[in-house]
Amino acid sequence: MKTKPDLKIAGSSARRLDGIEKVTGKAVYTGDIELPGMGCAKILRSPLPHARLVRIDAGRAEKLSGVYAILTRDDITSLNYQYGATYKDQAIVAVDKVRYSGDPVAAVLAVDEATAEEALALIDVEYEDLPMVTNIEEAIAPGAPLVHETQFAKVQMRGTSYGAPEKFKGTNVCYYFGYSHGDVAEGFGKSDYVYEDTFRFPKVQHYSLEPHVTVADFKEGQLTVWTACQDPFTLRDHLAGIFNLPQSRVRVIVPYVGGAYGGKLYVKAEPIAAALSWKSRRPVKLAFNVSESFKTITRHPARVRIKTGVTRDGRIVARECEVHMDTGAYADAGPRVTQKAGYRALGPYRIPYAKVDAYGVYTNTVPAGAFRGFGAVQVTWAYESQMDLIAERLGMDALEIRLKNLLKKGELYTPGDTPVDCDLKEGLLKVAEAIDWKRKPSRPYTGKGLSCCIKDAGGTFKIAGATVKMSSDGSVVLLTGTVEVGQGSRTALSQVVAEELALELDKISVAELDTDVTPYDVSTSASSSMTVMGLAVQRAAQDLKKQLLRAAAKAMGKKAAQLTLKNGKVYSRGEGVPYGQVISDHFGSKAGEIIGRGIYRDVKSKKAVLGSPTTFWEVGWGGAEVEVDPETGAIQILKYISAADVGRAINPVQCEGQDEGAVFFAFGHTLFEEMVYEDGQLLNPNLIDYRVPTFCHLPKEFYSILIENGNGPGPFGSKGMGEGGLLPVASAIANAVSKAVGVRIFDLPITPVKVWRALREKKL
Amino acid sequence: MKTKPDLKIAGSSARRLDGIEKVTGKAVYTGDIELPGMGCAKILRSPLPHARLVRIDAGRAEKLSGVYAILTRDDITSLNYQYGATYKDQAIVAVDKVRYSGDPVAAVLAVDEATAEEALALIDVEYEDLPMVTNIEEAIAPGAPLVHETQFAKVQMRGTSYGAPEKFKGTNVCYYFGYSHGDVAEGFGKSDYVYEDTFRFPKVQHYSLEPHVTVADFKEGQLTVWTACQDPFTLRDHLAGIFNLPQSRVRVIVPYVGGAYGGKLYVKAEPIAAALSWKSRRPVKLAFNVSESFKTITRHPARVRIKTGVTRDGRIVARECEVHMDTGAYADAGPRVTQKAGYRALGPYRIPYAKVDAYGVYTNTVPAGAFRGFGAVQVTWAYESQMDLIAERLGMDALEIRLKNLLKKGELYTPGDTPVDCDLKEGLLKVAEAIDWKRKPSRPYTGKGLSCCIKDAGGTFKIAGATVKMSSDGSVVLLTGTVEVGQGSRTALSQVVAEELALELDKISVAELDTDVTPYDVSTSASSSMTVMGLAVQRAAQDLKKQLLRAAAKAMGKKAAQLTLKNGKVYSRGEGVPYGQVISDHFGSKAGEIIGRGIYRDVKSKKAVLGSPTTFWEVGWGGAEVEVDPETGAIQILKYISAADVGRAINPVQCEGQDEGAVFFAFGHTLFEEMVYEDGQLLNPNLIDYRVPTFCHLPKEFYSILIENGNGPGPFGSKGMGEGGLLPVASAIANAVSKAVGVRIFDLPITPVKVWRALREKKL
Repeated sequence: MKTKPDLKIAGSSARRLDGIEKVTGKAVYTGDIELPGMGCAKILRSPLPHARLVRIDAGRAEKLSGVYAILTRDDITSLNYQYGATYKDQAIVAVDKVRYSGDPVAAVLAVDEATAEEALALIDVEYEDLPMVTNIEEAIAPGAPLVHETQFAKVQMRGTSYGAPEKFKGTNVCYYFGYSHGDVAEGFGKSDYVYEDTFRFPKVQHYSLEPHVTVADFKEGQLTVWTACQDPFTLRDHLAGIFNLPQSRVRVIVPYVGGAYGGKLYVKAEPIAAALSWKSRRPVKLAFNVSESFKTITRHPARVRIKTGVTRDGRIVARECEVHMDTGAYADAGPRVTQKAGYRALGPYRIPYAKVDAYGVYTNTVPAGAFRGFGAVQVTWAYESQMDLIAERLGMDALEIRLKNLLKKGELYTPGDTPVDCDLKEGLLKVAEAIDWKRKPSRPYTGKGLSCCIKDAGGTFKIAGATVKMSSDGSVVLLTGTVEVGQGSRTALSQVVAEELALELDKISVAELDTDVTPYDVSTSASSSMTVMGLAVQRAAQDLKKQLLRAAAKAMGKKAAQLTLKNGKVYSRGEGVPYGQVISDHFGSKAGEIIGRGIYRDVKSKKAVLGSPTTFWEVGWGGAEVEVDPETGAIQILKYISAADVGRAINPVQCEGQDEGAVFFAFGHTLFEEMVYEDGQLLNPNLIDYRVPTFCHLPKEFYSILIENGNGPGPFGSKGMGEGGLLPVASAIANAVSKAVGVRIFDLPITPVKVWRALREKKL
Repeated sequence: MKTKPDLKIAGSSARRLDGIEKVTGKAVYTGDIELPGMGCAKILRSPLPHARLVRIDAGRAEKLSGVYAILTRDDITSLNYQYGATYKDQAIVAVDKVRYSGDPVAAVLAVDEATAEEALALIDVEYEDLPMVTNIEEAIAPGAPLVHETQFAKVQMRGTSYGAPEKFKGTNVCYYFGYSHGDVAEGFGKSDYVYEDTFRFPKVQHYSLEPHVTVADFKEGQLTVWTACQDPFTLRDHLAGIFNLPQSRVRVIVPYVGGAYGGKLYVKAEPIAAALSWKSRRPVKLAFNVSESFKTITRHPARVRIKTGVTRDGRIVARECEVHMDTGAYADAGPRVTQKAGYRALGPYRIPYAKVDAYGVYTNTVPAGAFRGFGAVQVTWAYESQMDLIAERLGMDALEIRLKNLLKKGELYTPGDTPVDCDLKEGLLKVAEAIDWKRKPSRPYTGKGLSCCIKDAGGTFKIAGATVKMSSDGSVVLLTGTVEVGQGSRTALSQVVAEELALELDKISVAELDTDVTPYDVSTSASSSMTVMGLAVQRAAQDLKKQLLRAAAKAMGKKAAQLTLKNGKVYSRGEGVPYGQVISDHFGSKAGEIIGRGIYRDVKSKKAVLGSPTTFWEVGWGGAEVEVDPETGAIQILKYISAADVGRAINPVQCEGQDEGAVFFAFGHTLFEEMVYEDGQLLNPNLIDYRVPTFCHLPKEFYSILIENGNGPGPFGSKGMGEGGLLPVASAIANAVSKAVGVRIFDLPITPVKVWRALREKKL
C-alpha cells in the first residue's frame, strides 16, 4: 500500500470549476456554436431495415429555394467515404444497401430546419427490400441473410484456437475472441457439479441529455469541426483519412459535452456534417434529436451462456463462457467490446480451468458500440446471477461462496496481466455489512442480493499528454485532452495541478480542447482519465515545479532542494516569493511563462492476453434490498449500497456522484430500458416510450462507500472509477428478487410483467 | 559573415499559406465572430477637446427598448478602471475630464447598431469647457493648461543629467529621455561649421484596412476576448489587472488581423467591450468605423531641432538633437516612442560628440502611440534632410558626404549596444547605382535624392516561445504567438519548420493564436518576428527533430547521427521511414505525437543605453527621382529604389512585398497625409478627406533590392525587416525635390501648396 500523502487540495470535495457556468446556462456546448452563413443539416434515413438502394434522385430537393446542398452517394465517390472504428464497413451515406431502419441515405443542408425537412421529403429513393436478421439467433442461423456481403472479420485468440477469419466467411460473424487456460473439459471432469445457464441483455441506448451534434466548417484544404465527442484525436485521424487531409489540417474542437457514456467515441455524425460543408463550402450544423441518437449507436444486446463446474463445498473449478454480442448493422467498436466481454467473462474468481468464446455478429439493427462498462455489463450480469444460482443449488450462503472463491490481492486474473491490485473481500464485506446481510428480512416479499464484479481498465492502448502554462502572475492554464463530459475531470485534474504547485484552485483554468494545440490523448474512456491523464497532468505540473524551483533557487541564491512551495509562493525559511515574481525575475521582465509537460503511456507486453497489462483493476461491489409486489411483480429497491475502490479520492464528492450515478444508470437496464423491435422497426426511440429511471425510483437508502487505500497507480494513489458501480447492479437486484419471491429472471430488464409471469408459473 | 546554408523550403518564394483563404473571403477576422445573444456596442465620444465632466445621466437611454446596458463612470468604480501601456492615465470611460474630441464618455450595448446609435443620443452629458493645448508649442508654453493635473512623468538618461521627474511637475511633459557622449559644446567648438535646422512631422494615422474591433464575452470569472491586436499576452495582462482576474482566467484569441502597424499594440477598444460584457453578462461586439480608429491612436507629431557641427571637408564632429513628441491626450506607448526617437536621432554616422534631449508632451488631441518605425520615422526625416542641407552648404556631393561619415560594420552606434551588423556602404551604393546617381538629370525640374537610416530592433524586451506538434501521420501544427497581421508570418515561420523538418509546406498548419494555449510572446512588433519568433520556432523544430531522430534510431537500430531527414522520411542509406511510421513505432500504436519546444529571450546588459543590446540593426536605404511641376508644385515620383538588409530572405517575394509596402506606406506621410485640427477638432478622420497614396502614385520604376549576406541572427542568417524601407522615403524625396527645384521643405507632408509657396518665395 502506498502511503497517503498529506494532501491539501487534491483529496478535498472542491466545488466544480464548471458548476456555476453550467447551472446558469452559460456553458457552451457544440449546439451553441454559431458561425456566419451556417446552414442547418438534416438526414434522410432509411425506412427499411435491409434493402438495396436502387435509385436516388435529389433533383426536386435541390431546386427547393433555401437548399444549399444535398448529399447522396453520387457526391462522395472522390472521398474515402468508408470509415469505421474497427472496419471500414460504414459509408458517409448509403451507397449500395441500407442495413437498418435509420441508416443515413442522404443529407440536406438548408437555410433553416423547416426547409431542410421539406427538402428531405423531396428526395426520391427507390429501395429493393431484402430479408433481414434482427437478433443474435436469426443472425447466426445457418443460411441467414448477410448484413454485409464483403467479409469483415477478425479473430483474436490466446490459449485456444478457432481457425482463421475465413471460417466466418458467408456468415454474420464479424469478430471472434477466444481465450482459455487449462483444459476446461478436464476441469468439468474434476467438478462435483456443473451448471449451465444462459442470460440475456437487451439493446439499450446511452441516453445522453445532449444528443449527437456537430458543427463542421470546411475551407481551402482545412476542416474544422466542433463536436460532442470523447476522442477528438481519433476522430481527427478518421476525418483526415476520409477527406485526404494531413492531420494538421483537421482541427477538432470539443466544447462541453452533455453526457457521453461511450456513445460519443469514434466517428458518429461528423463525416456527414463535414461532407456537407465540403460540398457546400459553408459551415454546417448537424444536431440530432433524441430519436436520431437512438438510431446512431446503442449498447450490444448479448446472449451469455455460462457453464460452471464447482466442488460440493462451493469452490469453482472450471468455467466456460459463450458470449454473443449483437453489434447491429455496422461494427463500430463492436469487435473491441466483444473482445472485452470475452476477456471479462470470468469474474473476480480463482478459476483453474477456463475457456471463453466471444462472437460479434451483425444484425439489421442500429449499430452497437462503446458503452459505459464496455462489454463487462453484459457478462457480469451473467456470472454474478449464476453465482447466486450456484449458491442456491448448493444450499450455500451467497456471501460465503463468493468469499471462498474471490481472487486475493496480488493474484492473477490471467497470466501476463497486472495482478489484482486491491482486496476484493474488503469491499464485499463492507456492502454486506451495510445492507445487514446476516439479518433475515423482517417483512415478506423482501430480499437482499450481493454482487462483486471486476474489469480491467480500458479498451485502448493509453497515451496521454498534458501541458501546464504558468503566467507571469503565477496563475496556470492546463491543456488536457480529457473531455469534460460531466464527470468532473476539469475540477479533479485542476486539483492535481493545484496540489503539485501549492496553488489555489481558482488560479487554474483549463483550456478549450482543440486538437491543434492540446497534447495528444487517446480518448476519455474506460474510467481511466484520473489515472492516465492524471499522471500526465501530475508529471506536467512536476516538470513546471522543477523549472520554477530552479529559477527561484537562482534568484534567491539557494539550492532548489532548500526551497518549498506554499500558497503560490516559494519559501526558504520564512521569506516567501510569489511565483509571478520568480517568473519576472527569471525573464527579467513582467512577461514570459514557464511551461511544464507530462506524458503517460501504457506498456505493451507479449505475455498479456490483450497486449498490454491493465493500468489498474476497477471493481464494483453492490448490495441491494428489494421488495416485490406479488400481485403486480413490481420491484421497489429499498436499499442500494455501492462500494468503489478509488485508491485515493481526488474529489470525494465527485467520486460519490460518479459511483451513485453509475448505479442509478444501471437501474435503467436492470428494471426498465429496452429498445423494442418489431419487423425490423425500432418502436420506442423517444423520451416517452423508452423508460429510464426517474427520481421516484431512488431507493430510500442509497449511498456509495469509497475505499481509499492509496493503492492506485494514479496521482496520490488514486485509481480510475465511474464504471465499477454499474456492473453489480443488475445481478445484485436479480439476486435480491430471487431471495424475496423465489423467482430467477435470466433476461433483463426485470420488468413487473416478467416477475409476475415467473411468479404465476411458479404457483402453477 | 555566416555561411549560407543550402536551403530547400526556407529561402524560396513559397505561396502564402493564407492566400487563398484571404482572396476568397473565407479568412476569419474578429469582425466575423458571432456569438449567440451577442449585443452591438457603440461609444459616446466627447465633442469637446478639453472639458470637465459635470454630469452624466443614462436614464433615458436605459429605458429604450433593445438596450442591454449602458456603461458610464458610475459603473466602473469597482474595477481597476485606469490603464495604459506606460502610465495608468486612461480610464475605460471618462471619469473626471474629457481630454480630446473623441474621448470615450459612455458606451451602449444594444440589440443592434441602430438601437445603439439611438441610445447614444439619449445619454445626457453636461460638460464644463476648459482651455486646451493642441500642439507642441502650446503644450510646452509656460503656464499652459494641463491635460493631466496628476503628474505622470518618467525620466530616463544615460551620460547626461536633467533632474528628477519633479522637474516636470505642473507641465505637460510626461517623459524625458536624455543621452550624450562627449561634451557636445566642446564638439561644436572643434567644428568648422555648425548648422541648426528644425523639422516637423505631422499627425498621421495607421489607416489599417480593418479598424479596431473586439468581441468580448465575460462569464463567471472568465473573460474571453477576440480582438484585432498585436500583443495578446500583454493585453491579457492589462485586462487581468482591470478586472481583478488571474491571467489564467483571461483568454485572448486573435483571428487574422487586417493590418496593424503598431496601432493595435497595447490596450485599445478591449476594456470598453469587456466592461460592457461584464455589466450585461452578454457577449459584446465593438467594431470601430474608420473615423473611430482615427480617434483612437495615431503617430506622434514631432518637432526635431537638429544642430550639427562639421569640418570643412564634411566630417561630422558634433550633433545635438532636441526632439519633442506630441503624445496626445494619453501617454499610451508615447514615452517608449519618445525614448526610441531620442535614441535613434543620431543617424548611421560616426559622431564623436553627441547630445540628445527627447520630450514626450501631452496635448488635447487623439493619443499617439506605437507606429511602424516607432520614433525613428520622425528623426530620420530630420537627420537625413539635414545631411543634404549640409552637403549643399558645403558644396559637397550628397553621396560623398554620407560615405565619409557612415559607421563601418562592427563600429558602435553607442557604447554597450550591438555593433553595426552590416555594411552600410553596400546598400547606399546599390541604391545610388540603381537611380544612376552620377548621371545629371536629362530634364528640367527633375532631381534625385538619397537617404540612409538605421534603427535598433524593438522597443520591448523580447521573449518568445513556440511549440511544434507532429501527429502520427507526420504532419505538423505550429503554435506561435506571432500575429498574422498580413506580413506573411504564417508562411515564413512555417517555412522555417518545413526546412528544419524536411517536410512539405502543406503538411504544416499554424494554430489559432489563443493565450490559453499558445506559448508566450511579447508582441508582434519591431520587425522582429522573423528573428525572435523565428529562432523560437527553429529551436522548437530542432527539438522535435532530435526526438524524432532518437525514436527512429531506436526503432531502426542505428545511432541518431547516422540518420538524415528528407521529404518527410528518416533515411539511413536508402531506406526511408515516414515520420508517421516512426511515431507509431515509438508509441506502439497509430497514436501519439511528438512535441518540440523552443524559446528565445533577449539578454540584458547594464552597459547598454536601453538596457538590452539590440538583436539586430535594421537599415533602410532609399533613392528617389522626382519631377516637380513648377506651376502647381505637384511632385511626381519617377523612380524609387529601396534596399533592405535581410540577412537571408526566408521568403524573398514576401520580403519584397514588405519592403515595397513600407516605401509606399511612407509616400503617404511624405506627400499627402496629415490629420488636420481646427479649434481642437479633427477635421478629416475619414477615407475621403484624409488622403493616402493610391495606385496612381506608384512610381514608374519602383523596386526593392534584398541584400543577403547571411549576417542576421535569425534562422538561417535571416534578419528582421519591414520597417527599414519606410525610414528614408521622406528625406530622399525632400532631397530630390530640393535638387529638382531648389527649395527645401522642412515640414511634412510635402504638399503641392508648400512647394508652390516655396517656389514663389524663392522667386520673390
